[in-house]
Amino acid sequence: MAGQSSRTHLVIAVILGIICGFVIGILIGALAINDSDPETNAAYERSIREADSSISKKLMETMESYNIRENLKHLTENPHVAGRKYSKELAEWMQERFKDWGMTSADILSYEVLLSFPSEIKGEENRIELLSETGNVIFTSQLKEDSLGETALERDDLLPPFNAYSPAGIVTGKLVYANYARVEDFHFLTRNLSLNITDKIVIARYGKIYRGDKVRNAAEVGAKGLILYSDPGDYAVPDAKVYPDGIFLPGTGCQRGSTYLGRGDPLTQGYPAKDYAYRHSEESIADSLPAIPVHPIGYDDATEFLKRLDGNEVVSEWRGNLENLTYRYGPGFAGADINKEVRMNIYSSNVRGMAYNTIGMIEGEVEPDRYVIMGNHRDAWAFGAIDASGGTAVMMEVARAFCKMVDNGWRPRRTLVFGSWGAEEQGLIGSTEWVEEFSKNLGERAVTYLNLDVAIEGTYMLDASATPNMKQLVYDTAKLVKDPENTGKSIYDIWVERSQTKENEEPHIGGLGSGSDYASFLQQIGISAFDMSYTYDRVAYPVASYPMYHSVYETFYLVDKLYDPGFKFHLTTGHIMGELMRALSDSLIIPMSCVDYATDVEMYFNNLKSGEIGKRILEENVSLDEFESAVNNFTSAAAGFEERLSKVDKTNPIEIRMFNDQIMQLERTFVDPLGLPGRPLTRHIVFAPSSKNSYASDKFPGIVDAMFDIDNNPDVNKWDIVKQQISIATYTIQSAASSLKPYTGSA
Amino acid sequence: MAGQSSRTHLVIAVILGIICGFVIGILIGALAINDSDPETNAAYERSIREADSSISKKLMETMESYNIRENLKHLTENPHVAGRKYSKELAEWMQERFKDWGMTSADILSYEVLLSFPSEIKGEENRIELLSETGNVIFTSQLKEDSLGETALERDDLLPPFNAYSPAGIVTGKLVYANYARVEDFHFLTRNLSLNITDKIVIARYGKIYRGDKVRNAAEVGAKGLILYSDPGDYAVPDAKVYPDGIFLPGTGCQRGSTYLGRGDPLTQGYPAKDYAYRHSEESIADSLPAIPVHPIGYDDATEFLKRLDGNEVVSEWRGNLENLTYRYGPGFAGADINKEVRMNIYSSNVRGMAYNTIGMIEGEVEPDRYVIMGNHRDAWAFGAIDASGGTAVMMEVARAFCKMVDNGWRPRRTLVFGSWGAEEQGLIGSTEWVEEFSKNLGERAVTYLNLDVAIEGTYMLDASATPNMKQLVYDTAKLVKDPENTGKSIYDIWVERSQTKENEEPHIGGLGSGSDYASFLQQIGISAFDMSYTYDRVAYPVASYPMYHSVYETFYLVDKLYDPGFKFHLTTGHIMGELMRALSDSLIIPMSCVDYATDVEMYFNNLKSGEIGKRILEENVSLDEFESAVNNFTSAAAGFEERLSKVDKTNPIEIRMFNDQIMQLERTFVDPLGLPGRPLTRHIVFAPSSKNSYASDKFPGIVDAMFDIDNNPDVNKWDIVKQQISIATYTIQSAASSLKPYTGSA
Repeated sequence: MAGQSSRTHLVIAVILGIICGFVIGILIGALAINDSDPETNAAYERSIREADSSISKKLMETMESYNIRENLKHLTENPHVAGRKYSKELAEWMQERFKDWGMTSADILSYEVLLSFPSEIKGEENRIELLSETGNVIFTSQLKEDSLGETALERDDLLPPFNAYSPAGIVTGKLVYANYARVEDFHFLTRNLSLNITDKIVIARYGKIYRGDKVRNAAEVGAKGLILYSDPGDYAVPDAKVYPDGIFLPGTGCQRGSTYLGRGDPLTQGYPAKDYAYRHSEESIADSLPAIPVHPIGYDDATEFLKRLDGNEVVSEWRGNLENLTYRYGPGFAGADINKEVRMNIYSSNVRGMAYNTIGMIEGEVEPDRYVIMGNHRDAWAFGAIDASGGTAVMMEVARAFCKMVDNGWRPRRTLVFGSWGAEEQGLIGSTEWVEEFSKNLGERAVTYLNLDVAIEGTYMLDASATPNMKQLVYDTAKLVKDPENTGKSIYDIWVERSQTKENEEPHIGGLGSGSDYASFLQQIGISAFDMSYTYDRVAYPVASYPMYHSVYETFYLVDKLYDPGFKFHLTTGHIMGELMRALSDSLIIPMSCVDYATDVEMYFNNLKSGEIGKRILEENVSLDEFESAVNNFTSAAAGFEERLSKVDKTNPIEIRMFNDQIMQLERTFVDPLGLPGRPLTRHIVFAPSSKNSYASDKFPGIVDAMFDIDNNPDVNKWDIVKQQISIATYTIQSAASSLKPYTGSA
Repeated sequence: MAGQSSRTHLVIAVILGIICGFVIGILIGALAINDSDPETNAAYERSIREADSSISKKLMETMESYNIRENLKHLTENPHVAGRKYSKELAEWMQERFKDWGMTSADILSYEVLLSFPSEIKGEENRIELLSETGNVIFTSQLKEDSLGETALERDDLLPPFNAYSPAGIVTGKLVYANYARVEDFHFLTRNLSLNITDKIVIARYGKIYRGDKVRNAAEVGAKGLILYSDPGDYAVPDAKVYPDGIFLPGTGCQRGSTYLGRGDPLTQGYPAKDYAYRHSEESIADSLPAIPVHPIGYDDATEFLKRLDGNEVVSEWRGNLENLTYRYGPGFAGADINKEVRMNIYSSNVRGMAYNTIGMIEGEVEPDRYVIMGNHRDAWAFGAIDASGGTAVMMEVARAFCKMVDNGWRPRRTLVFGSWGAEEQGLIGSTEWVEEFSKNLGERAVTYLNLDVAIEGTYMLDASATPNMKQLVYDTAKLVKDPENTGKSIYDIWVERSQTKENEEPHIGGLGSGSDYASFLQQIGISAFDMSYTYDRVAYPVASYPMYHSVYETFYLVDKLYDPGFKFHLTTGHIMGELMRALSDSLIIPMSCVDYATDVEMYFNNLKSGEIGKRILEENVSLDEFESAVNNFTSAAAGFEERLSKVDKTNPIEIRMFNDQIMQLERTFVDPLGLPGRPLTRHIVFAPSSKNSYASDKFPGIVDAMFDIDNNPDVNKWDIVKQQISIATYTIQSAASSLKPYTGSA
């Protein structure tokens, strides 16, 4: 037994020993491998780690509406137009916050640029006057907006209504009414009505197109001045309350705004306005600045001029909503007023001033050289509580929340960049100078640019614009964000309901024009972009924009009391922007769809071909076949790419990076260094701001412009230009296709 | 004892058990980790593997001079100018070889481009005639080069001497001699000698500058035609043997060549000449084509004209080496010949024809989306045994050797690309169309472009040109390649000795102009580039180029019997190109030095500042301070980059890739999409072909051009243009600096 027992003990002991050694061995073996180069595996493991999607919720929960309200309160305490006192203070205040929150870097980048200001000399107030036949002033437009009892609006440091970059000048003449001052409006006046506009002063209402295009159009038909006014038909709603009782524009409200036709500092086009920059003379860049004086007025003042107009009654589409008034074309005044004239007195001047950008960065853990950029402009014509300090207040809270996540141990795969731009209002200047200064780094590194200008202009639903590759991500994000009204729905559900999206369709996401700071990212470098606002019910309220746009009444009160008490809609926009940034910066595979881009390009092509332009092209026997075959090639290349992407080896960090590079670089392929005709810095061949309306986005703008009004175009080479633009579009789409094909084999 | 023994046994058994279990455990533990995802670790391990440097030697040993000779024999069997019979055959022959050798892909990419040919109609032979005063032809230049007894040179399908793109025309006039027809030569004639060149026919010798620049210069001073001839002073050596007894130019030899001033298909500038391309009219691109007839002759013919010239005897620098001849300026003839005139009869025409590129690729194992490109042009004016079929023969052997290495189990980290270009001779057309077609992919993916046009034009030493970041790699490579003369030295040693390099210096590596196919890679995209030949002793033989350049005498015989019997120098060029490709495609860190780039830029700046240009700029009180500070910033950014690079975590493939991306992209930062003034497709701000001589490379060409002859420039804005160019150079260097700085923190 003893022998038996001892043998049993022996066996048991040996087995235990083996097991024990085995376990220790496995542990040591495993650890030894892991420990042989612990950093190696940590870096490698991190480089193939999928994003932690639980961060989504935590990030949103970290944002507080209270903070957004506090931010906005501070931002709107003082007027903060570029080039004046509070401009730098706020840039520095943001920099300090970014530093306090622990960002990797927070810098102020400054540029000396051409700005425009009204004169500050007594007697040199910009104004429109009605002159008696003996030349006496019998009416003067308001020199500044009425404070409506709010003492803050009486401050001396508020800029009165004016149109930036208007030349100074005093011009007197007969008045002509030109509706929205679009090309087609002037065609109607000159062609249909045979009205001669030379040396007239034009009065036109704001809306439909960018005001800079209105001035150019007026100057092109020979007008000597342009008065812009806000018609109640475009900025109010019958019987609805006006400020301060409601959100609609009172008769004293006035839309400031730039009339510059370029992007970025007018004197240093294509290059950053640094100390070393060569500055062109204003004469040499005259094409991009208004040629005639231009000035904005409110509808109370406008009535004094419009009610006196002579001429036929306008067609119904030209009629605004001013009461007790028959809209007429002019020229000049009727009846007792027949010899009265209008005088514009403009004393503005262009001066050099500083634009400050505050740039905060949170360095990515795996790919610090890939940038997901969020941007918003900090400057405003007055208090800017909506445009764009509401967006600034939100961006700061998004930034703070990300810093908090980093404090808690999370780090995004890619670098987050927060850009607070100066001098957007004058012509997207701060963002453009930054894009120009860092064009090479951005071209190499920027994944996408997310813009938040006006965060909320209403509380009805989401209004989004984006390059096509971002659309699915926007839908997915909207599904994750709760309706702030506590309906239990997502803002995606609300969007679908309220935009009356058809079954099997998605809510509309618009194209990108040139209305805000995304323009230079997209147009000069080819960086995919996104822009959004929470908006109002555009069916119920068919206004041209939120009514208080660029008026002195864009106050903290307007937002805090009338628009978004509790700031929950502001918070919602923060949730959207934050989640977009998180997904773009942390996903293993960048969530931008090349197939969606191809699908939309195909749709644009089909719309072009089957539309008026396509019909006219084919009528002329100009072929679209090669263009169509490029589009088909792009579609199948994108499908092939997605197929390969679906099989990506997610344990191979280089393979992941290669796919991501292609996803990121697709947008770059649409940019032609030679630019669009006459627009060397507007380079995107698929989308560009319409040359007739900088706010709008044209598809295949080179072709659209070449075809514009072609049958009235006297240029003998006009069809050659069309062919050339079709060829360039074809080349560009082939380039896009090629970028998505396998790396070898070029046939 | 038993107890004792059994306890001992027990202990031993347990210990053995533990050890046994331990060992097995360690093995299992280690293997389990390794085996948990074997592919993972294979891909990961490969992605951080250092290049196997033993491949160097194997690769060189795989190349055989015999194969190069066989290749050249085949390539030079027939004339193979672009657009004629053997052009496509050879492209296909190369494609077949590439396929046979097992390349990942081998494609032919074709473009329909504007070419130029002499007329084939009897009586329409291009020629220069001497006319009697009654208009009778008393002398006619040779209609084709003498075969010198070689029947192959009598073939009908050989193109006679002509200058491509010369307009057709018959012009008669008095002759003026203009030395090399440089700007300064014409200045001398018109300013110093007050000679009126209007309506004269100019005769000038080949050499010093690109022939296209000569025609432009002659046309600009009003000449009605230009005769180019090869002077024995530039293409022969006194008493040295001429072809077929030696390598020097016989009096019947004649230099063909293009006179086009652009790059790439003249009709589709900036875009590939595909089916869908819009083609400009020849009139609209007239600036880039010669405005007056131009024709090349040999020195036997030239003597007939030069010996009759009237006027003063030329200054000594204008004197060539024609015997029994006094070089005179003209105008017109002297003595008995006073009423004789010269008539140029040119019947060439521009026609559309095909350019074929054969593109072979060997896909990289780790980073297939990174391209190391070797290129050579396949077309030749006649047999092209030197220019550039020698290079083609070598490239094929390099390609074959790489395929062999792949057969043997090796794969480069990055993709190898072999580009065989068509229509280089007409104006770098094939390579430019390819660069244009794939500009986006190349901008994103190309590590470097290695050019081999003329492989050997002598057997004396290496002649290399490169972007500065490639220089160290070129020296390192030259040290690895053995002198083919079996001296036991390296070709680096030979280079140092024969170029009389000073101690502590390196042999000279030149800048890149526009003489060969690297130009569009460098100028349109900003791809780092290298170009080389094995060259002759330029001190002993001060010829303008290898003497048989572009003549019909560039035969297989010339190379096989006179230049490189045994082809060992050809093999040497293969060793250099192969090793460069290997190092660039397989090294973990791309062996291109950012510090060397900064060092050279600093030197260029200092040379500019201390030279004539800088002195004149400072005299005018134009500041170079900001420019200097940008240069210093670049230098310190490069140093910082190298410091960080030296600490790269070589176990982190993403970190490796990020550093490599910066190394690769540095060259891109020098490219300005807006281009140089008047040269929208010549975009490199640091190097560009001199606008006065396309063969040469200017440093800071924008500034150099703006300063050219500034004191005689009547433009009132001339100093503004200088300031603007200094500002653009400053911006560009700041961009380069910024690209090398850490990814976050932009101040």
